[in-house]
Amino acid sequence: METHHQQTKSRLDLFRQKVYIIIYGVNTPAGKTFDIGLLIVILLSVFTIMLETVEGIDLIFHKELMLLEWIFMVLFGLEYALRIFVSKRPLKYIFSFYGIIDLLSILPMFLSIFISGSHIFGSLRILRLLRLFRVLKLMEFMQESSKLKVALMASRAKVVVFLYTVMIISILIGTLMYYIEGPGNGFTSIPKSVFYTIVTLTTVGYGDMVPVTPIGQFLSMVLMVTGYGIIAVPTGIVGVEIARQLTKATVERPQDIPPAQHGSLNGMVCAHCNREDHRDDAEYCYHCGHSLHI
Amino acid sequence: METHHQQTKSRLDLFRQKVYIIIYGVNTPAGKTFDIGLLIVILLSVFTIMLETVEGIDLIFHKELMLLEWIFMVLFGLEYALRIFVSKRPLKYIFSFYGIIDLLSILPMFLSIFISGSHIFGSLRILRLLRLFRVLKLMEFMQESSKLKVALMASRAKVVVFLYTVMIISILIGTLMYYIEGPGNGFTSIPKSVFYTIVTLTTVGYGDMVPVTPIGQFLSMVLMVTGYGIIAVPTGIVGVEIARQLTKATVERPQDIPPAQHGSLNGMVCAHCNREDHRDDAEYCYHCGHSLHI
Amino acid sequence: METHHQQTKSRLDLFRQKVYIIIYGVNTPAGKTFDIGLLIVILLSVFTIMLETVEGIDLIFHKELMLLEWIFMVLFGLEYALRIFVSKRPLKYIFSFYGIIDLLSILPMFLSIFISGSHIFGSLRILRLLRLFRVLKLMEFMQESSKLKVALMASRAKVVVFLYTVMIISILIGTLMYYIEGPGNGFTSIPKSVFYTIVTLTTVGYGDMVPVTPIGQFLSMVLMVTGYGIIAVPTGIVGVEIARQLTKATVERPQDIPPAQHGSLNGMVCAHCNREDHRDDAEYCYHCGHSLHI
Amino acid sequence: METHHQQTKSRLDLFRQKVYIIIYGVNTPAGKTFDIGLLIVILLSVFTIMLETVEGIDLIFHKELMLLEWIFMVLFGLEYALRIFVSKRPLKYIFSFYGIIDLLSILPMFLSIFISGSHIFGSLRILRLLRLFRVLKLMEFMQESSKLKVALMASRAKVVVFLYTVMIISILIGTLMYYIEGPGNGFTSIPKSVFYTIVTLTTVGYGDMVPVTPIGQFLSMVLMVTGYGIIAVPTGIVGVEIARQLTKATVERPQDIPPAQHGSLNGMVCAHCNREDHRDDAEYCYHCGHSLHI
Repeated sequence: METHHQQTKSRLDLFRQKVYIIIYGVNTPAGKTFDIGLLIVILLSVFTIMLETVEGIDLIFHKELMLLEWIFMVLFGLEYALRIFVSKRPLKYIFSFYGIIDLLSILPMFLSIFISGSHIFGSLRILRLLRLFRVLKLMEFMQESSKLKVALMASRAKVVVFLYTVMIISILIGTLMYYIEGPGNGFTSIPKSVFYTIVTLTTVGYGDMVPVTPIGQFLSMVLMVTGYGIIAVPTGIVGVEIARQLTKATVERPQDIPPAQHGSLNGMVCAHCNREDHRDDAEYCYHCGHSLHI
Repeated sequence: METHHQQTKSRLDLFRQKVYIIIYGVNTPAGKTFDIGLLIVILLSVFTIMLETVEGIDLIFHKELMLLEWIFMVLFGLEYALRIFVSKRPLKYIFSFYGIIDLLSILPMFLSIFISGSHIFGSLRILRLLRLFRVLKLMEFMQESSKLKVALMASRAKVVVFLYTVMIISILIGTLMYYIEGPGNGFTSIPKSVFYTIVTLTTVGYGDMVPVTPIGQFLSMVLMVTGYGIIAVPTGIVGVEIARQLTKATVERPQDIPPAQHGSLNGMVCAHCNREDHRDDAEYCYHCGHSLHI
Repeated sequence: METHHQQTKSRLDLFRQKVYIIIYGVNTPAGKTFDIGLLIVILLSVFTIMLETVEGIDLIFHKELMLLEWIFMVLFGLEYALRIFVSKRPLKYIFSFYGIIDLLSILPMFLSIFISGSHIFGSLRILRLLRLFRVLKLMEFMQESSKLKVALMASRAKVVVFLYTVMIISILIGTLMYYIEGPGNGFTSIPKSVFYTIVTLTTVGYGDMVPVTPIGQFLSMVLMVTGYGIIAVPTGIVGVEIARQLTKATVERPQDIPPAQHGSLNGMVCAHCNREDHRDDAEYCYHCGHSLHI
Repeated sequence: METHHQQTKSRLDLFRQKVYIIIYGVNTPAGKTFDIGLLIVILLSVFTIMLETVEGIDLIFHKELMLLEWIFMVLFGLEYALRIFVSKRPLKYIFSFYGIIDLLSILPMFLSIFISGSHIFGSLRILRLLRLFRVLKLMEFMQESSKLKVALMASRAKVVVFLYTVMIISILIGTLMYYIEGPGNGFTSIPKSVFYTIVTLTTVGYGDMVPVTPIGQFLSMVLMVTGYGIIAVPTGIVGVEIARQLTKATVERPQDIPPAQHGSLNGMVCAHCNREDHRDDAEYCYHCGHSLHI
C-alpha cells in the first residue's frame, strides 16, 4: 500500500520535496549549508549596496559593482522562484512578511531594465537582513535569543511606563530650554529643544546645541544627573527579568513547557501555513497539523 | 423609601452625576473614552504649540495654527467649567494642583483677546502633560508605574548620598580644571568648569569645552573612567530595589496590603476632597469617607 | 566625691566642654544646629569663590564679594581657634587631615593682608567641601553612605582588574589609531590618541577628534560596541555587591557586628585622638578609651 | 642515590634552574621582584614610545629618548636570551604567542642599526603590555580576574546574539538615515551613516554628523531612547552572570573544582610546554606532566 502511494508521486513531487528540505530544513546538512550560504550572499549584497554609495569607490569600480548587483538579483530571483515552487500554498508565502521583502529585494533591479532610475530602490534589499534573524535561530544561540526576547517581553509594561515618562520630561524641559535659551543661542524651536533635551538625557551629547545662559547650563546639569539616574531604570528592569528568566529556566526545565515560552524551537517553517516557532521535537505543525518533514 | 429619595434629586443632579462618572470614572466605558479623548486633545494641543515655534511652518500655517489654538481653548474651557460644575466642593478643585494647571492652560489664550502679547504664555498649557500621568494610571500599566515609584522611593536615601557625592566631586574637580586649563582654553570661570566636569562625568560630552593641556587631558581621562564606575552606583541601587520589589510582590500578594504600598489603585478621584490613590476595591474615599460612586 | 571632682573643674573647662559638645556633638540640638550652620557657610563661601571667577559678576560686585570673603575668613578663623581650644590634644587636630584643610582655607586670605596676590590660593577653601561628607553622616543618610562604601570596598579587587584592562586596551588601541589616522587627521601623538580612545570607550564622545579613514572609523565602531559591553562590568559588580550588602544586612542585623562593617555610627569625633566611626551606642572611644561625652 | 643524581647536574644546569625560578617562579621573592621589575620596565618603555610621538617633547629630548630606547632594547634582548636559555624546549617558547611578541619588541630597534627607518616599528613593543595581564595574575587580583573571565565566557552566547542584533539595527537605520538626510547634510555614504548610527546608539555622540531634517531628528531621537534600552541588555546579562558566579563560588568552594573553572591558579608557566593556568597546588604540569619546580 505505502510503496504504491509513493510510486504515484511524480518525479516533480520528489524534487520539490528535496528542495523544500534544503530551503526550510534545519537539521539536515543540506539545509544548514543553504542557510549559511544565504546568510553570506545577503551580507555580500548589502555590502555591495553600501559600497555603491561611497563616491570614491563607485567612481572606480562602478561596472564591477553593477555586475555584482545583477548576480545577486539572479540568485535572489532564483531563490524566490524556488520558494514559490516548493510551497504547498504559494500565495500564502507571496503575501507573507518575508515573501514581500524577498520580492522587494529583486523587483527594483529587475524593473531598472525597463524603467531607468528605479534601480535606486535596490537598497530595499537591505530589509533581507531581517531574514538573518531566522538564520540566527539555527545556530547554538537560538535558545539565548528566545530567552532575551522573553525577558524583554516580560518587562514590556514597565518599559512603556518608562518611555512615557521620558517623553513627558523631554517635552516639558525642552519647552523650558526654548524659553530660557531662545533662538539666539541655537534653540530655534521647541522641537529642536526637545531634540537637545533627549540628546542630553540619553547622554549622547552631540554638542551641536549647547546652553549658553547660566540658567540653561544649570538646568542642563540637573538634566544630565537625572539622566544618570533614569538610565538605571531600564537597566534594572531588564537585569531583573533576565535573572528571573534564568532562575525559572533552571527550576522549570524538567516540566512540560509550551515552545513559545521556553524557546527550544527547531527553527523550521511549515510548508503549509508558513508558521515558525515549532517545538524542538515537533513532527507536525502546531497550527495546521501538516507534517514538518513534508 | 429609596425610590422616593431618588425622586427628590433634581434632573440637574442626575446630569451632574452622569458627567461626574464620565470625567472621573475609570471603569465605565464612557469614562475610559473621555480619558483617552482628553489624552489625544492634550497631545494635539502640545504639538500645535511646538509647531508654532518652527519658523518655516508658522509662516505658512499661522492662521490654521491660531484656529486650532482657539478650538483647544474652547475645549479646555468647557472641560474646566464641567469639572467645577460637577465637583461637590468646587473651590477645592480650583485651588488644587491640577485645577491651577487647567486654568493656566486656558487663561493666556483667553486674555489675549483683551491684552495683546499675553498669548505667549500659552505654552503653559504644556503643563497639562502632567495630567497624562493620571491617564496612564487607567491603563494596564498602572501597577507597573506604582512598582517603579515604590522602587525609586525605597532607594531615595541612597540616591541623595549619591547626588551629594557627585556634586562635591564636580565642584572640586571643576575648580581644579579651571586652574589647570585657564580662561585661555575656554574654561572661563569655575561654574563653566563645573559644567564641563558634569558633562564629562555623566558621559554626555558635548565637546564645546575640551581640555588642551596634557594635565587637563589626564585629569579628564581619570574623570571619565571614574564616571564609568560612578554610573554603576545608581544602576545597582535601582536594580536591587526593583528586584526586591518584585520578590516582595510575589511573596506578599495574598496578604492584605494597604494601597499606598502595592499599587492596586482604582485611578478614581474623590469628588469631595479630590484625593487620588484609592484602593482597587474602594467604595468610599479613604480620606473623607465620601462615596466614590457619587 | 563626684561632686567634689566636678567643683575642681575651672569655669574655662566647663565652657570648653560646652563648646566641644557644640562642635563635635551630633545628637544634641546645639551640635546639629552648628553642623548645619557650618554646612551652609561652607557652601556659601564656595559659591562666593565660584562667582568671583565669572568676569561679568566680578566686575560689578567685586567689593561685595571681597567683603563676603573677609566675613568667611573671620568665621572660619574663629572656628579654627575654637577647635584648637577645645581639643584635648590640639597638635593632633592641627596636623590631622581636616586640621590642615581648615588652616589652608583661612591662610591665603589672611596672608593677602601682607603679601598681595596670595589671595588667589583662597580657592583651596573648596577643600572644605570634603568636611561636608562628615556633616552628611549626621543625617538619616548616614547608614546608606556606609553601606555604599562597604559595597564599593568589597568590589575593590574586581574594580582594579577592570581599570587595568581598560588602561591596556586604551593604550593598545590608541597606538593603533595613531598609526591608522595619523597627525593629518588630528591624531597628533599617541597620548592624544589614547585620550581619544578613552573618550570613545567611556561613551563620552567630545567630537574634537573624529576618525576620517574607513579603517579608523571601523575600529572606532568596534571600540564603541566594546565599550557598551565593558560598561556592563562595573555596573554588574557594584550591583551585585549592593545586593549582597542588603541581603547580609537583613540576615545579620540581630548579631553583634563591629561598627566598621555595618555603619550604625554616631558620627562623633573623639576629643582625645580625633578618631571617627564610633558605634551608635558608644560611650567611650574605641581607640583610646576616652569618653566621647568629654 | 639522590645526592649522587644532583652531583651529576652540571653547574650550568644549576644556574639555569635558578634563573628559571626567577623568570617563571611566582611564589618566590626573587620571582615576584623580577615580575614587578619587568612590569615597570615595560610600562616605562611604552611611555617612552608615547612621548616620542609628542612633537614638542621629541624636539627637545630626542637624544635622551633614543638613549632610553637603546637601554630598553638591551634589557629586553637580555630577557629574551635568558628565556630561551632556561627553556627546556626553546623552540616552543620562540614560536609561542609571547615569544613572538618578545622578539617583535626588540627586532625593529636592532634592525635600525643596519636599515634606517625600521625604527618606526618599535611601537610593536606596545604589544608587550599584554604580558602585563600575566603579571596581574601574580597579585591578589588573580582570582577576581578569573571570575570576571568566567562570567564573561558564560554569557558569550547572549553577547553574540546582542551584537548581531545591534549590527542589523545599525545597518538598517544607517541606510534609512542616508536616504533621509542625504549627502548634503554630511551623510555622504551608507557606511558613514552606519558609523553615525552606532555613534548615536552607543550614546557616544561625537557631533561631527548631526541630523538636520525633522524626520532625521525624529528617527535619531527614537534611536537614542532605544539605545537607552539596548544598553540595559549587556549590563543585565553580565550582572546576572557575575551574581551567579559569586553564588556558585560560595556554594561550591569546598568541592574539588578543576582549575580552569574556579581560577585559583598558581600563575606559573611550564618550562617544558609553556602552558599556563596550573592549579594553585599543582606540582606537575597538567598537560605534559613536567615538574613545575624544574
